Amino acid sequence: MTASLGAELHRWIRDLYPIGRSLTGDGVRETLRRLGELLPLSVREVPSGTQVLDWTVPPEWTLREAWIENSRGERVVDVRRSTLHVVGYSRPVRARLSLAELRPHLFSLPERPDWIPYRTSYYTDGWGFCLSDRQLTALPDDRYEVCIDATLQPGYLTYGECELPGEIEDEVLVSTHVCHPSLCNDNLSGMVIAAFLGQRLAARRRRHTYRLLFIPGTIGSITWLATHETSVGRIRHGLVLTALGDGGSPTYKRSRRGNAAIDRAAAHVLAGRGTHQILDFTPWGYDERQYCSPGFDLPVGCLMRTPQGQFAEYHTSADDLDFVRPDALGDSLEVATAILDLVDKNRVFVNLQPKGEPQLGRRGLYPSMGGGPQPAEQLALLWVLNLSDGRHSLLDIAERAGLPFDVVDRAAGALVERGLLGDPSAER
Amino acid sequence: MTASLGAELHRWIRDLYPIGRSLTGDGVRETLRRLGELLPLSVREVPSGTQVLDWTVPPEWTLREAWIENSRGERVVDVRRSTLHVVGYSRPVRARLSLAELRPHLFSLPERPDWIPYRTSYYTDGWGFCLSDRQLTALPDDRYEVCIDATLQPGYLTYGECELPGEIEDEVLVSTHVCHPSLCNDNLSGMVIAAFLGQRLAARRRRHTYRLLFIPGTIGSITWLATHETSVGRIRHGLVLTALGDGGSPTYKRSRRGNAAIDRAAAHVLAGRGTHQILDFTPWGYDERQYCSPGFDLPVGCLMRTPQGQFAEYHTSADDLDFVRPDALGDSLEVATAILDLVDKNRVFVNLQPKGEPQLGRRGLYPSMGGGPQPAEQLALLWVLNLSDGRHSLLDIAERAGLPFDVVDRAAGALVERGLLGDPSAER
Amino acid sequence: MTASLGAELHRWIRDLYPIGRSLTGDGVRETLRRLGELLPLSVREVPSGTQVLDWTVPPEWTLREAWIENSRGERVVDVRRSTLHVVGYSRPVRARLSLAELRPHLFSLPERPDWIPYRTSYYTDGWGFCLSDRQLTALPDDRYEVCIDATLQPGYLTYGECELPGEIEDEVLVSTHVCHPSLCNDNLSGMVIAAFLGQRLAARRRRHTYRLLFIPGTIGSITWLATHETSVGRIRHGLVLTALGDGGSPTYKRSRRGNAAIDRAAAHVLAGRGTHQILDFTPWGYDERQYCSPGFDLPVGCLMRTPQGQFAEYHTSADDLDFVRPDALGDSLEVATAILDLVDKNRVFVNLQPKGEPQLGRRGLYPSMGGGPQPAEQLALLWVLNLSDGRHSLLDIAERAGLPFDVVDRAAGALVERGLLGDPSAER
Repeated sequence: MTASLGAELHRWIRDLYPIGRSLTGDGVRETLRRLGELLPLSVREVPSGTQVLDWTVPPEWTLREAWIENSRGERVVDVRRSTLHVVGYSRPVRARLSLAELRPHLFSLPERPDWIPYRTSYYTDGWGFCLSDRQLTALPDDRYEVCIDATLQPGYLTYGECELPGEIEDEVLVSTHVCHPSLCNDNLSGMVIAAFLGQRLAARRRRHTYRLLFIPGTIGSITWLATHETSVGRIRHGLVLTALGDGGSPTYKRSRRGNAAIDRAAAHVLAGRGTHQILDFTPWGYDERQYCSPGFDLPVGCLMRTPQGQFAEYHTSADDLDFVRPDALGDSLEVATAILDLVDKNRVFVNLQPKGEPQLGRRGLYPSMGGGPQPAEQLALLWVLNLSDGRHSLLDIAERAGLPFDVVDRAAGALVERGLLGDPSAER
Repeated sequence: MTASLGAELHRWIRDLYPIGRSLTGDGVRETLRRLGELLPLSVREVPSGTQVLDWTVPPEWTLREAWIENSRGERVVDVRRSTLHVVGYSRPVRARLSLAELRPHLFSLPERPDWIPYRTSYYTDGWGFCLSDRQLTALPDDRYEVCIDATLQPGYLTYGECELPGEIEDEVLVSTHVCHPSLCNDNLSGMVIAAFLGQRLAARRRRHTYRLLFIPGTIGSITWLATHETSVGRIRHGLVLTALGDGGSPTYKRSRRGNAAIDRAAAHVLAGRGTHQILDFTPWGYDERQYCSPGFDLPVGCLMRTPQGQFAEYHTSADDLDFVRPDALGDSLEVATAILDLVDKNRVFVNLQPKGEPQLGRRGLYPSMGGGPQPAEQLALLWVLNLSDGRHSLLDIAERAGLPFDVVDRAAGALVERGLLGDPSAER
Repeated sequence: MTASLGAELHRWIRDLYPIGRSLTGDGVRETLRRLGELLPLSVREVPSGTQVLDWTVPPEWTLREAWIENSRGERVVDVRRSTLHVVGYSRPVRARLSLAELRPHLFSLPERPDWIPYRTSYYTDGWGFCLSDRQLTALPDDRYEVCIDATLQPGYLTYGECELPGEIEDEVLVSTHVCHPSLCNDNLSGMVIAAFLGQRLAARRRRHTYRLLFIPGTIGSITWLATHETSVGRIRHGLVLTALGDGGSPTYKRSRRGNAAIDRAAAHVLAGRGTHQILDFTPWGYDERQYCSPGFDLPVGCLMRTPQGQFAEYHTSADDLDFVRPDALGDSLEVATAILDLVDKNRVFVNLQPKGEPQLGRRGLYPSMGGGPQPAEQLALLWVLNLSDGRHSLLDIAERAGLPFDVVDRAAGALVERGLLGDPSAER
């Protein structure tokens, strides 16, 4: 199943790959429109100039053309060939320049001569082109016609939001950034996996309410936080999803709190699935830096594979369709699903017969002939009864017992059914 | 001394070995009568049918005969040869059966063909025989006369209790199970060591009040807890004693609290005596599972040698008089004594001259000529003075100082004598 | 710079080396007079007989002569050759004795036959001479004229105190003992480094108020504590300085609290400087045992190089001018300075824009072109903003971030300048 699932995730990435996304603009709108086929996605528009916390929503950037022509009229660089060729948020330019004049506006990666770098010029008044170093160093001394036909005008910041109501108002946040152009791991992988996760969550019984955000990096999360200050307190658990398709093993970066339920759930799930990495919180990376700023301090971690900047292809044209693998994408979706599943099921129960052990035998929960070894299911019943004193969650019990969460959860279910375990919030 | 002590303990086990004990009945009564020669033991009887927590005191089981006769009138199995031959709490049976009909009622250990297993059928309506696999597989196809002449009738659950009042009402609980028939390590070793411990405690000055329980496993501790709910809060420290005679090194299993004084005392004593093992609490094992159920959560650990189920002889006829060793028995009694001694002596004092060091020299507690190295006794005085701020017990101080508890206890005694140390509860 | 600084420190030790110091008396007065050239030192005198906590200020000891003459009138031992030759606080003696009668009053070190031991006879009524074992064993059977021309009379205990007021009343204590005669590492190194430290502190801007004490060991700190009971609560951090010139690496002994700011500051500074040692508190050593007695429990640690008693030269004539090294002295002064510098600068700030990250770019704190790696200075800004929630000091942040304190302190300074960081105590 994971094989075909991975292939399907990869197909979605392939479809969204050519779209020229940026912080704002039609590339983001088109991306959200297509992801909306998978889950019920509301598109929000926040006007340029809106004050959001310490920031201002920027003007909308619309790019029509961007190219460099040599004196023979050949377009040596053209954004139609790769969305990475133009520096994001470049101001409009039309000029005829010598190579020496053009040179400061050209960016390449000398150590990776065949790759095109990804560069942006947000919140400054610059312009430029990115190209491979092989091409750059081969450019002859010539007069070049340069064209960036773009507008930076009042418009909107666009983002997608999917709210899936649950039995309780406590929320689980899933956030992914949609501002990168043709880069597959960072972050088409995050967008597509978040959308599939939303599709799964929409179809199942939910205890928590789920909120999935598809936002431009930094300014998007800041905008959402600024416009939802009164309700962010409902967020009990959260995950930023990014870089989920490369060949590395799963990595979870803890929330600022470090020991939130989401942090422990991720560690438990990953420990049960093989090679992985757990990182402490740092105030850089992706949008978790906003959710985990001290004025919010939300329990939001980040799920990825190889961390930001630790793969050579990071922010280059080599983060392409070959760099993301179907099997890694499928595995990442399963990991994210399992983590959210665990936090949804994780509860604190109370043993309603806390003095001595209840007689399990007459309730059909104990083998009738004493003496033999006890299977994990049997031990889980005893652990749940022993630790359900109102201070231990099922995850606490699983960790203490060294048992998989699912075994402990099933034991709790059997005990609830027999009236031996109750919900403390339901007690008189 | 330990050598002759071990031999004496072993002699007691030999005397009690043939008695057919069970959850209830005359085997337990006879065992308690004999142990009563060592310590002042009150025998309590709780009627069958009494509701105790979630359980009911079972009918009393009286076994007169149990055997299997072949068609030639030969008794191929007879409980007179081993108390293990009959499944405990078997209902009465008298029938003539083919081998095929008899077979589901016969229990053996194919992987240990010469050993007889120990099986019980508490709280169910079964019957059966246990025999060696060698004998079982050699039984010819035949008609067998089967007799279990037993009654399961209203009677009593019988247990022994020894209360030894001390200077304070705070109690130390010692509990051991008496329901197993001819099994030496589990648990004649526990019964005999508990009785000797009681004999020692009865003869000495006691700060705490001591309560020793000789009870059938599970139902016995549940019955005692149910009938003493209002007074269990006086229990400050406790030890379950079991499996104390095998060749393994001493093992202490922590209470549910994990860091209770008894847990730390046991760790300190064992660390000072060589090879040993400390285990975290688990909600299975012996009666600690009842004392440590969440509604009681008493600070009761378990002292044993090889843990339950980790020796091949566990619950088989091979747990016999050769399996328990005099040296191990003697060592176990000394360990148990040392642990209880430590918790009895462990107190929190306050330095009555807490500002600066008191001048020890003029009180005869300091060498008069300055300069040389300081022996442990000297360092212990300084540690006790420095840490006796009302928040550190003598055990805390011993652990922090890396000194044996006894050295620290003696230093405290010398300081109390000089009026430098006081009892905080005695302060105005 | 450290080279010439070390040489200067060593010159000071050379000058003070010959002075015959003791618990009380003119040797201490002369030492304080000379150190007063370095820093503003007030000399205090506390009369003999004054009750100080559990102790009494002893009589003042004045030694004029101390020698042993053989029958040929040769002074075989004379305190003029070494201040160590007489047992400190010896009572006056004038007698003609056989070697056998004299012998119990002679002290040597058989395992170090060329060294003279250092011995004292405080608070007892003894007398004696110290000499090399080679000399002692060579003494012929003879009649010896013995002279200790000393007085033990009501006088004063003398100590030096330097108070350097700062912006806040919270105090930093520096304490060093001045009672040892001609021993260089223990403790001319401590005295001279404390005096240089005072000179440095006097010349710079101080947030804390600093108090430097030059006191006789034990009785001096007890006297100071007894006479300042109402103000010791202002001491927020403290260091005892001793044995700072030997060839070992720096050693810091934690305060009784174990995790005081001074303890963490010392660990941070030493970790950044190479080989070092951190020791847990013990209630023996130097005057930290008084400051850390439970009735005061001040956050005072001890900075030294090789710990007390762990160098063979300890309390012998071999602790001489060759034993202390200029480079070690210079390094010790720098370490002490850095530790005090850190505790002075260590503060808790609050992020004044705690919701989301502030936009650093428009404040000139962020590179304008996104994409490249971030230097430590950049990361420090993010860490300070993220953790400045009123619960983390700059040192907490440096430790969490794995960055040097100075980098974090500079980042905080830049953020304070931009109005992004504030002092929580200054908040309305």
